[in-house]
Amino acid sequence: MQRKKSINEKCGVFGIYGHKEASTITYHGLFALQHRGQESSGIVSTDGKLSYKHLGMGLVADIFSESKVLDELKGHIAIGHNRYSTTGASKIANIQPLVFNLFDYQIAISHNGNLVNTASLRKKLMEEGTIFQTTTDTELIIHLIAKSKSKKLEEKIREALNIVSGAYSMVLMTEKQLIAVRDSYGFRPLCVGKLGDSYVFASESCAFDLIEAEYIRDVNPGEIIVIDEDGLHSYKGKCNPKYCIFEYVYFSRPDSRVFGEFVDKTRRQLGKNLADEADVDADIVISVPDSSNTTALGYASRSGIKFEIGLIRNHYIGRTFINPRQSQRDFGVKIKFNTVGGVLKDKKVIVVDDSIVRGTTLKKLTKLIRDAGAKEIHVRISSPPIKHPCYYGLDFPSTDELIAGKMSVDEIKEYLGVDSIHFLSTKSMLSATNKDPSEFCSACFTGDYPIKVNEKQDKEIFEN
Amino acid sequence: MQRKKSINEKCGVFGIYGHKEASTITYHGLFALQHRGQESSGIVSTDGKLSYKHLGMGLVADIFSESKVLDELKGHIAIGHNRYSTTGASKIANIQPLVFNLFDYQIAISHNGNLVNTASLRKKLMEEGTIFQTTTDTELIIHLIAKSKSKKLEEKIREALNIVSGAYSMVLMTEKQLIAVRDSYGFRPLCVGKLGDSYVFASESCAFDLIEAEYIRDVNPGEIIVIDEDGLHSYKGKCNPKYCIFEYVYFSRPDSRVFGEFVDKTRRQLGKNLADEADVDADIVISVPDSSNTTALGYASRSGIKFEIGLIRNHYIGRTFINPRQSQRDFGVKIKFNTVGGVLKDKKVIVVDDSIVRGTTLKKLTKLIRDAGAKEIHVRISSPPIKHPCYYGLDFPSTDELIAGKMSVDEIKEYLGVDSIHFLSTKSMLSATNKDPSEFCSACFTGDYPIKVNEKQDKEIFEN
Amino acid sequence: MQRKKSINEKCGVFGIYGHKEASTITYHGLFALQHRGQESSGIVSTDGKLSYKHLGMGLVADIFSESKVLDELKGHIAIGHNRYSTTGASKIANIQPLVFNLFDYQIAISHNGNLVNTASLRKKLMEEGTIFQTTTDTELIIHLIAKSKSKKLEEKIREALNIVSGAYSMVLMTEKQLIAVRDSYGFRPLCVGKLGDSYVFASESCAFDLIEAEYIRDVNPGEIIVIDEDGLHSYKGKCNPKYCIFEYVYFSRPDSRVFGEFVDKTRRQLGKNLADEADVDADIVISVPDSSNTTALGYASRSGIKFEIGLIRNHYIGRTFINPRQSQRDFGVKIKFNTVGGVLKDKKVIVVDDSIVRGTTLKKLTKLIRDAGAKEIHVRISSPPIKHPCYYGLDFPSTDELIAGKMSVDEIKEYLGVDSIHFLSTKSMLSATNKDPSEFCSACFTGDYPIKVNEKQDKEIFEN
Amino acid sequence: MQRKKSINEKCGVFGIYGHKEASTITYHGLFALQHRGQESSGIVSTDGKLSYKHLGMGLVADIFSESKVLDELKGHIAIGHNRYSTTGASKIANIQPLVFNLFDYQIAISHNGNLVNTASLRKKLMEEGTIFQTTTDTELIIHLIAKSKSKKLEEKIREALNIVSGAYSMVLMTEKQLIAVRDSYGFRPLCVGKLGDSYVFASESCAFDLIEAEYIRDVNPGEIIVIDEDGLHSYKGKCNPKYCIFEYVYFSRPDSRVFGEFVDKTRRQLGKNLADEADVDADIVISVPDSSNTTALGYASRSGIKFEIGLIRNHYIGRTFINPRQSQRDFGVKIKFNTVGGVLKDKKVIVVDDSIVRGTTLKKLTKLIRDAGAKEIHVRISSPPIKHPCYYGLDFPSTDELIAGKMSVDEIKEYLGVDSIHFLSTKSMLSATNKDPSEFCSACFTGDYPIKVNEKQDKEIFEN
Repeated sequence: MQRKKSINEKCGVFGIYGHKEASTITYHGLFALQHRGQESSGIVSTDGKLSYKHLGMGLVADIFSESKVLDELKGHIAIGHNRYSTTGASKIANIQPLVFNLFDYQIAISHNGNLVNTASLRKKLMEEGTIFQTTTDTELIIHLIAKSKSKKLEEKIREALNIVSGAYSMVLMTEKQLIAVRDSYGFRPLCVGKLGDSYVFASESCAFDLIEAEYIRDVNPGEIIVIDEDGLHSYKGKCNPKYCIFEYVYFSRPDSRVFGEFVDKTRRQLGKNLADEADVDADIVISVPDSSNTTALGYASRSGIKFEIGLIRNHYIGRTFINPRQSQRDFGVKIKFNTVGGVLKDKKVIVVDDSIVRGTTLKKLTKLIRDAGAKEIHVRISSPPIKHPCYYGLDFPSTDELIAGKMSVDEIKEYLGVDSIHFLSTKSMLSATNKDPSEFCSACFTGDYPIKVNEKQDKEIFEN
Repeated sequence: MQRKKSINEKCGVFGIYGHKEASTITYHGLFALQHRGQESSGIVSTDGKLSYKHLGMGLVADIFSESKVLDELKGHIAIGHNRYSTTGASKIANIQPLVFNLFDYQIAISHNGNLVNTASLRKKLMEEGTIFQTTTDTELIIHLIAKSKSKKLEEKIREALNIVSGAYSMVLMTEKQLIAVRDSYGFRPLCVGKLGDSYVFASESCAFDLIEAEYIRDVNPGEIIVIDEDGLHSYKGKCNPKYCIFEYVYFSRPDSRVFGEFVDKTRRQLGKNLADEADVDADIVISVPDSSNTTALGYASRSGIKFEIGLIRNHYIGRTFINPRQSQRDFGVKIKFNTVGGVLKDKKVIVVDDSIVRGTTLKKLTKLIRDAGAKEIHVRISSPPIKHPCYYGLDFPSTDELIAGKMSVDEIKEYLGVDSIHFLSTKSMLSATNKDPSEFCSACFTGDYPIKVNEKQDKEIFEN
Repeated sequence: MQRKKSINEKCGVFGIYGHKEASTITYHGLFALQHRGQESSGIVSTDGKLSYKHLGMGLVADIFSESKVLDELKGHIAIGHNRYSTTGASKIANIQPLVFNLFDYQIAISHNGNLVNTASLRKKLMEEGTIFQTTTDTELIIHLIAKSKSKKLEEKIREALNIVSGAYSMVLMTEKQLIAVRDSYGFRPLCVGKLGDSYVFASESCAFDLIEAEYIRDVNPGEIIVIDEDGLHSYKGKCNPKYCIFEYVYFSRPDSRVFGEFVDKTRRQLGKNLADEADVDADIVISVPDSSNTTALGYASRSGIKFEIGLIRNHYIGRTFINPRQSQRDFGVKIKFNTVGGVLKDKKVIVVDDSIVRGTTLKKLTKLIRDAGAKEIHVRISSPPIKHPCYYGLDFPSTDELIAGKMSVDEIKEYLGVDSIHFLSTKSMLSATNKDPSEFCSACFTGDYPIKVNEKQDKEIFEN
Repeated sequence: MQRKKSINEKCGVFGIYGHKEASTITYHGLFALQHRGQESSGIVSTDGKLSYKHLGMGLVADIFSESKVLDELKGHIAIGHNRYSTTGASKIANIQPLVFNLFDYQIAISHNGNLVNTASLRKKLMEEGTIFQTTTDTELIIHLIAKSKSKKLEEKIREALNIVSGAYSMVLMTEKQLIAVRDSYGFRPLCVGKLGDSYVFASESCAFDLIEAEYIRDVNPGEIIVIDEDGLHSYKGKCNPKYCIFEYVYFSRPDSRVFGEFVDKTRRQLGKNLADEADVDADIVISVPDSSNTTALGYASRSGIKFEIGLIRNHYIGRTFINPRQSQRDFGVKIKFNTVGGVLKDKKVIVVDDSIVRGTTLKKLTKLIRDAGAKEIHVRISSPPIKHPCYYGLDFPSTDELIAGKMSVDEIKEYLGVDSIHFLSTKSMLSATNKDPSEFCSACFTGDYPIKVNEKQDKEIFEN
């Protein structure tokens, strides 16, 4: 499950209400959601009076490596956040959950997604004397909540969210309440479960499996759910689903239920559709481990070609790897993958991968496979070419670094130096799920954006 | 490739002579050998005059995470060591490579294996006034070398090694020489390669793949190889091979060449032999990832039963994982593995694993598989029951913790709560290789030890 | 100069405009002002575009122990702050200089002093939706500046300060300006100097000596000074001096010029006045080093009694000192002071100290002196009994811990077990300076407060 | 008491037998002896079975800043060591106490002093196969003990010490015994005391004052004292006193008893002798604080000239101080000392200092004093010119860096730019004590060495 791409989900969120060890359960939830953000994590908890916070750069298991850290995060309510972010000391203030002191309560927030068109709103507030503590779009929501004249928290939140637009699956917390909110498109996943008498929220259901909670349902697009001492209160809102198809293609864990369906099943179907659409004569099917394993098995079962392990993935990789100074060699891909000589030698090989971003890694991989003696290499990708940026929570490289933004499919084949290549069609991709194709956002493939974005303004936001 | 067992190889060793960036290459070699020891690592280098040393607890990529550390390890000769060891500050002195100042030269040593029957010899030297710096058996060799009256280093080493017995694949280094030595049984692997004009030694050939060195041959059992400015000098010794069969079953990387053969090929054959010996009617074959993947594919191909991914392995695991205080739940196995519900539900499942040590992990895994809805569970193990300790370099739990030391195969089946179980026979295991069965040590399965061990004395050694 | 008391100045401030190495000079300035705050320090600098910040807990020399830290604090304007504060991770947000992002500029602030009567104002702002980042009274000033409709920064500042009251000697900084401000009473010192073409501000002139800057004059009570590319601009305000007399008695360095006069000279005069007021027959005069050395020399010169070194002070003291677990002994005072046996034995000893707070340290010291063989002990204190809290920037223990709040002078003599004691009278204390006595605040001795304080509300402030 | 010179005592030692909190008492003892070594410290303790060790670079209070560190140093016997040493990671192995595993016991050692003529002996042992762990001369003693055929420890020690020569005041420790040893010249101090039923050893008696132990007597030159469960056993040896006069002049704390006499008293007499030998017409006497304070008071009392505080010493100095990059200014002396303007202006000033090494610091100090307005400056030094290296435990700069090795007294006066200078004569210096002048080593002034040194060989030793 370790990520290999230069695409990054920006976040995973988790929240729990009504558990004696709320922070420890949150830590477990974040651990299960590690693949959604690996550069910083944080937990905020409350015992109804005071709040407690711990955050850091790095992996969940390293940030919360001592039980005393969790012991100090007291209370029965907690929220947590895993984040992918640009590094840099100046950005430590941006590590979520963010915590703010409002007039008569404290509020903490974990946000998955991105707001759009926020620049002018932020400017207006600052001109009036509002002081921002971070450069996140998330903070904007809190200032709007703080300035709301409404009485009830759910009304303040609704009022604030009516002013902004974009993608947000978030959990918030005060000393008394746990709140889950999802934008009306439902770009990013968020589901609700029960653990004994406690309520839990998580980006993906795999977090429930680890903590042995029961999956109940998705938080609906447009819905606000408030948990307090009287139980669960649902406040419905406009619902116009545009689920992110990339969650099925690559991001979510295969053992998760996302948008109401098992990822593993959809991913296997992607492999089958790929075999249907572009089968080829070959000796073996191999995957680029680990994210494409299920897809490759789907391909192999539909095509009848033997599945083999042709690439071994090294999981010991740390933050840095030091190359020799005086060498031109690039160890980048070799430290992650080694080929299994006996498997590949003199074979016609189908290589299944989920997507191509820059293409540089796949180029090196196919060279390794060729060097190991493969006679033919046929690349099969379980999604269409990526040509457009995502404004709703994924972190692609800039458009001009996307290989499909610069090259035709034939040119990509030449660039990779392979015998054939096929990208799954958008239609076939969307048909791998049980939902209506219109319920998905596939803007990164098609350029068809559900929400218009003022690109010039948002550049500012996306650079933070 | 991340280890899951309570069996541990004690070490991986690496050495290089004649390279401008000897320490960086050694770091790469150790990185590729990470699976042979994950608790401490060290590198010693020399520029012909001074020697440089850096070591630490943890993974290679963390200990050598800054290029300036490698820059300070100057020189054209270097050796390195990965180690599994009992933790504890008092044992930091034991992290290898060990370095000693002898009269007119310095000597550094990286040792894979264990000496036996050393207690009385150590006692005698101490009575005469010799002061030991560590509690390792490795240091004994150095004192014997220091006290040797022979002139040449290879003679001093031969003289010292004639006094001790046991398992040792080691590399040594002075300001002028790189030396590789293997005991006459060749218990542990050690091979020699070339990288341009430089000579390299490594426990497994996967280290050569990463650094793009060429595999030449194994260091022979009983051989001493000295590299100096005049090139390679081989000094042959008694050769009576007793290779460790566990290197094929579990330890070595599938992409390595060990004892002259590809591990991947032997491991696939182990799976086929297992299907031959004990096939069973089932819907799917799954492996306990990642170490049994190749074996399970071998089993599936021979039996014709479909290979599936039923267990997802989490690779984000750090040193510690904190359980809830007030819960009886054991997260131990759940944080490493999650089941894929759709794959297992209502299926007859063959679970392929390489070996059983205590049985506790497998018991939890089979329960997870049962909870995911499997109709039948058939466990297939690609090695015989482990019943005896290893004195030659593997770190098993004490004999009374080995499940096969306490239970019959039927009792193990009951304990695991599975529908059937089969351990591969010793004969069939040894026939999976191309060598004569008599060339292997399988003492941990059979109790037939190539070297007699004075258990009482050695207890002292093994506790250090 | 190391502090020994449980009285603490809350802060030292420094600022510089127009120097290539502004942050390094600021570091030197803070180093010279270390005695005004030893628990945290920080520097903020700007190059006219971006701002840079580094702060930490501990001493200046430890926080800025690497030149690269200063190299990263780029720019030609910088301000710094030394602070005494209650410890605790939750208060790290309070370490100054504080930095805030306002609409079209950034503002940083270093504040020496305390505002009073701020609770209701803070409450009103929060009710309107203002979010506070710290629990400092300093932040209140910034929000008032941010909300000001005035155009020029000096007007915004004046407008904000007209709303609050209390003690403040502060330096502020934007990307373009360095500003120094002092309240109309001038409780705390602040002076301006020149270093080549650069302007500098500091709490005490000893900072100018170290950086070799020239002392110009005090920032006047009520004055706002703005330094920008056009030079120095002074904006006068109401001036009603109430200088803190304790700066002369104890806080300021003897080599500083404070409120326009040399501290050393005033302190020597305090000793002379003390001898005039309460001389006694004795063999030697000793001081409690180092803060009372000058006063004791003044006493000795006026009385004609020989000055001796009877107490040796240990300067190696770190943050903590560990007492034996199973002992009733208190090493507290012994680790700081040791007596010189030959000097004290069989002597009548006058012990000169500057003030008594709790009296516990002096009690232990006089016991040490008695144990060393002193025949008589006469305590002479160069200030009156402290009976009242300070609301203007000193951190006394709570009133009921002040020994003079609970005991008469005779009772204090009994408590200390000394042969006589004398506190300098308020009148004599104030006459040791060249100023009119009415220009001083001596509220901690007399209870006569220049600004009325709403004690109930301010409790909240002072606990932060 | 903080050191300012480029002369360094190499060590302070401490030991205790028979106390429940032996390591905590040792920590206190080392704290009191901090001035004898400020670069590393260590403690070794034993509970009669196991031994415990903690050491580090830096000050005692920082290395032992947590009580749990002391709690882990269990047992009723402990020894400690403060050390001045050249820094560098490679020398961490040299931090004392050193601990060695001998045949049937462990031995730890803290050594103050230097052996001489050890090079050939070390070479001989290494040729025979002995492996050294450190580059200290101290280790040589341990190997000689290990190889001794004698039965009793005191005999082994005597036998080993008969082979070496040089200066050593040391404490050793096994699981059962505490041993104190002093060479027959007694160069370096070492005294014995009692704390309840426990015995204690320390370099200076000030350590006894802090722990409230009773000073008994000096360990005699040539004596071995063994403490075990039967009490104190003294083994006398050859005694030919050559006490280091520099302990009185500069090193020892003024409140210590050293070589049986109070340092304070001797130091005051040095000041008086200096006034007798070279009085001059002046207005005030000032000292270079803190080490010359007592001497200056002695001078003032004998001459009748007024003692004043003209230099303020800053005690906040950390390990490093960063100078501006683009400035020629040297802050070196200014960060330590500031002048008190009012005291010095227009005055004829006598500056009393204990010794001159390189002269660079004093040159800067006298310039500061001149800049503060002094009319005349008369330097008075309470020891003769230092012209020769010390081989017995002091760390002077190399001979050609000693100002008195290169210049006559007149030239030094010119170099310093002062009106007069006088160095106390050797005869007058030695007459300040109550002992016979022949009982002192003053080789650094006279070149008259009690033990001949083979300089060429020892260079090697002294460079380590």
